Amino acid sequence: MATSYSARSRAIEPFHVMALLSRANQLQAEGHDVIHLEIGEPDFSTAAPIVAAGQAALANGHTRYTAARGLPALRQAIAGFYQQRYRLSIDPERILITPGGSGALLLATSLLVDPGKHWLLADPGYPCNRHFLRLVEGAAQLVPVGPAERYQLNGALLAKHWNADSVGALVASPANPTGTLLSRAELAELSSAVDQRGGHLVVDEIYHGLTYGQDATSVLEVNDQAFVLNSFSKYFGMTGWRLGWLVAPPAAVPELEKLAQNLYISAPSMAQYAALACFEPATLEILEERRHEFGRRRDFLLPALRELGFGIAVEPEGAFYLYADIRAFGGDAFAFCRHFLETEHLAITPGLDFGHYQAGHHVRFAYTQSLPRLQQAVERLARGLKSWRP
Amino acid sequence: MATSYSARSRAIEPFHVMALLSRANQLQAEGHDVIHLEIGEPDFSTAAPIVAAGQAALANGHTRYTAARGLPALRQAIAGFYQQRYRLSIDPERILITPGGSGALLLATSLLVDPGKHWLLADPGYPCNRHFLRLVEGAAQLVPVGPAERYQLNGALLAKHWNADSVGALVASPANPTGTLLSRAELAELSSAVDQRGGHLVVDEIYHGLTYGQDATSVLEVNDQAFVLNSFSKYFGMTGWRLGWLVAPPAAVPELEKLAQNLYISAPSMAQYAALACFEPATLEILEERRHEFGRRRDFLLPALRELGFGIAVEPEGAFYLYADIRAFGGDAFAFCRHFLETEHLAITPGLDFGHYQAGHHVRFAYTQSLPRLQQAVERLARGLKSWRP
Repeated sequence: MATSYSARSRAIEPFHVMALLSRANQLQAEGHDVIHLEIGEPDFSTAAPIVAAGQAALANGHTRYTAARGLPALRQAIAGFYQQRYRLSIDPERILITPGGSGALLLATSLLVDPGKHWLLADPGYPCNRHFLRLVEGAAQLVPVGPAERYQLNGALLAKHWNADSVGALVASPANPTGTLLSRAELAELSSAVDQRGGHLVVDEIYHGLTYGQDATSVLEVNDQAFVLNSFSKYFGMTGWRLGWLVAPPAAVPELEKLAQNLYISAPSMAQYAALACFEPATLEILEERRHEFGRRRDFLLPALRELGFGIAVEPEGAFYLYADIRAFGGDAFAFCRHFLETEHLAITPGLDFGHYQAGHHVRFAYTQSLPRLQQAVERLARGLKSWRP
Repeated sequence: MATSYSARSRAIEPFHVMALLSRANQLQAEGHDVIHLEIGEPDFSTAAPIVAAGQAALANGHTRYTAARGLPALRQAIAGFYQQRYRLSIDPERILITPGGSGALLLATSLLVDPGKHWLLADPGYPCNRHFLRLVEGAAQLVPVGPAERYQLNGALLAKHWNADSVGALVASPANPTGTLLSRAELAELSSAVDQRGGHLVVDEIYHGLTYGQDATSVLEVNDQAFVLNSFSKYFGMTGWRLGWLVAPPAAVPELEKLAQNLYISAPSMAQYAALACFEPATLEILEERRHEFGRRRDFLLPALRELGFGIAVEPEGAFYLYADIRAFGGDAFAFCRHFLETEHLAITPGLDFGHYQAGHHVRFAYTQSLPRLQQAVERLARGLKSWRP
């Protein structure tokens, strides 16, 4: 029967780290203490005021569908957040609430990509992006980027790689797995380059809020025709609730609403009510403290990894990842990850999960563990490097 | 910019009832008492034990992602339910938890449909089905069905309409909007007809549990290679939680897991924990009482509509809908719906939302209102028919 599955399904790759994770679970079941630095999810549970708002929503019987575009009060609250954080006036009518950032990506690819058409994407990058393009029979045109480009697309790369099938570009700031940002000038340059070619610019701002030392610029500050993907998962710490949003140009909204009605009906109701508490001062205080904690972890782990010989040429300014070159140690990244899991019970993600370009000698560390755990992890890395035979 | 949206987006239709709904909201805002018989959602809030379990999950910090396939305990509980209700042994490994029935449909179409390929679907039927096929650049091959076929596909229709591009059939039992069931013999006949042609059979069992007088047969009783779409939305009354499931043949599970990881990461966590309470005797008692209440409503509304002259040739055995022929009154169904909304403040859904075949002279009533409200609705119908000028 397997041969009768779609070509699409055969083309979409699993997360390669899953094979390691299943081995990690086995090791844990055998009583080993595994340190998980492979997981792209904050280690904090959702902040108490948000949880309380979710519980109150349930107590008040908010268990039915909402409008496909989401609760008006939440769309209004997000617009207020753009005003407060970015000094931007965004009409709430342009905001659609989605089931996670995944839902926003589903809407954007469905709306903007015809079969055979391409979006330019940075390689390395978040792997699901290219698979959403594949879902709708479009394709990702992966553009290799390295430290010289701070792992980001730019106007020159766009001009070089754009072809007759290109209809847009998707960039992320902060980026996963590299944590680099796009400046206001870079976003303006990309906007203009995409616009000149009659394409669509889609910006993943899912890690906004999780930056250290400087705030991230929203593409909406320079381009009100861009599509913005965002999520309550990372900065707001609501992964399991499955809630995100999409900001779109006004003309696209009726089309997106139609797609939302058909593709997911509405985002989870209790999550939408809970998210109303995200923007209260008491919640933001907790979230800011968590941001500082991530900052402290980055400030510990980044120099510690460099000290051990990992190559991190560009200082990541956001997200909670460090993308490290392992060429100094030799060998293949997947084998390297397997070695550390088996000998040191330390789980990290192989570069293969983020694309193809130099993936074989890169790994990603997520600092989604406490400082004491990160210290232990560094000790294990130091020890495990001694027994690594490429 | 609108011209640069995808052909897919232009092809996917909005719910036509939305135009009526927005007018209904306006009437309500003006102080009118609108009776809503257009909504495909139980009027009951989620049952208290399920809500309590959701609140406990939040109190216990279950706010993070689960595995893509869903909580093992929930998959086990669903398998137990198949054992208890259907005397069927379903390996929990074959069950994937999805974000709503929509998520299950997304997985099934992604896995099984290549561009240009078709599934046979009954017309009238649930409109999103054909739009999910369009999403992945496949298509619905709509097969007109009427009272003679009890609004369902069968082996002969399948043989007649199957062509070189057909790769499967999607049927629903109970069906929306008609409420008819497929018997064990009919499911076996369809299974064999699809199997002979090397296709896939997908059965929407989302309204299982909501049947009156007889239980619905699961296709899994006769065909363990079928794909089953199910949901916690209807019988379990959990619409706003966005939770469903898919039962698949064992060989398909790794492929589906990969798609789930990429397309939605995991279904909402607190919903999954809450759903564990669905299968407790105290909860099932509440759900069975609600089923009986729906049965009483059907037993009132069905003869009352027939008395007024609505054509309901086939007695619906499940779901909470009555699909009625309005030819006795003349005129177009959409205008008919608008007339009742404007003059009687009664909202019903035009046939157009369920396909094309005879859609212009059918409407759907959802008995998702209390008996006293249904009695009022019938009074308004009687009065509004007198002022109806086609």
